[in-house]
Amino acid sequence: MVLLIHHTTSPFSRKIRLQMSEKKVLFVLKEEEPWNLSEEVYQLNPSGSLPIFLYDGNFISGNYAISEYLEDFIKEIRLLPDDIKQRADARNIIEWFDTKFYEDVYKKIVVEKVHKRFSKGLAPDSKILKIGLNNLNYHMEYIDWLAEKDNYLAGETFSLADITAAAHLSIIDYLGDVSWENYRNAKIWYSKIKSRPSFKDLLNDTIRGILPSKHYANLDF
Amino acid sequence: MVLLIHHTTSPFSRKIRLQMSEKKVLFVLKEEEPWNLSEEVYQLNPSGSLPIFLYDGNFISGNYAISEYLEDFIKEIRLLPDDIKQRADARNIIEWFDTKFYEDVYKKIVVEKVHKRFSKGLAPDSKILKIGLNNLNYHMEYIDWLAEKDNYLAGETFSLADITAAAHLSIIDYLGDVSWENYRNAKIWYSKIKSRPSFKDLLNDTIRGILPSKHYANLDF
Repeated sequence: MVLLIHHTTSPFSRKIRLQMSEKKVLFVLKEEEPWNLSEEVYQLNPSGSLPIFLYDGNFISGNYAISEYLEDFIKEIRLLPDDIKQRADARNIIEWFDTKFYEDVYKKIVVEKVHKRFSKGLAPDSKILKIGLNNLNYHMEYIDWLAEKDNYLAGETFSLADITAAAHLSIIDYLGDVSWENYRNAKIWYSKIKSRPSFKDLLNDTIRGILPSKHYANLDF
Repeated sequence: MVLLIHHTTSPFSRKIRLQMSEKKVLFVLKEEEPWNLSEEVYQLNPSGSLPIFLYDGNFISGNYAISEYLEDFIKEIRLLPDDIKQRADARNIIEWFDTKFYEDVYKKIVVEKVHKRFSKGLAPDSKILKIGLNNLNYHMEYIDWLAEKDNYLAGETFSLADITAAAHLSIIDYLGDVSWENYRNAKIWYSKIKSRPSFKDLLNDTIRGILPSKHYANLDF
């Protein structure tokens, strides 16, 4: 049995939860608020990043380390393409979301709206928020283009690239900031991912004190 | 033959160069200044991140995608441990340098001292620089601790974790900002990595208009 120390606002936590569900890994969750981490978390992982993956008295931290570990360990259900060039292309999309999208969108929307409020009691800086929303719209065009090209973001099969992208987008969607009506292909793709059984658990998530957008848990949004 | 579009100030470019040399991949380099990228780069990789790896009419961008591709493709010389838990631990160190060290140190020292000067003609912001140098010293204690524990950063064998760490540190060292005398174990470790044939090419690098620190290319520093 796996214990995952996570938080619903962490896209990396959402990614690992989805990946474990897809791979039929049994796990329990333990929530830790990123703005109020316990000593236990810092002892396991001094950098304080989430999630942390615990099993059999062992642990792994780091989103890239955990997700590749799951691919190495459970080979029956693969979430990266078999062909090594396609695998590189999928990893490139994953990396883009985990670094570029995270920097341009997550840090400017979720950190401003959620982290700042709970860690410092402050309202979001409207200038930073505006930049984040502009970046989001700009990046949604890329996602829309990826979704139009093929059935899934990294080709014709569902992969960790879809999981990573949906993990990142779902938090922004919780806050109601994705203008789905402007991105038809991205919307069709997201609706497909959202309908997977692995996603169900995420749609029940709540952020303390912040209600989800009306359509957050709606499969027909 | 591989063509790598790179820049000497990019730790991700340095990592892929070292990894290719260790794996005996033949490659040629093409330099692109991050503050003055050509249309060609943006066409290959709209996010503008370096390096870009070109081969046989194909290309891969993204540091994580390229380095895992090299591991997948050239299995004779492996730079990640065979044991999957040890592999996860090595990837965790790699991720820590590529995200945390990059954010805390690279962006506050190299971006301030080099990128800002060439992209905007500005001097570094002394407040940001001071934070970067404090972060560096704090993180050097962690590197010193890792280097004391085992022969190499991710255990008893040389791995991509050492390559990644040395790639990041070597740029800071070019600028003369690492106080090696305070971190004896880290210094012994870095001296070992620096003496590898794969490192030689990096020690001949120059940044236009900025001389390397006196000991940069010195193996006995």
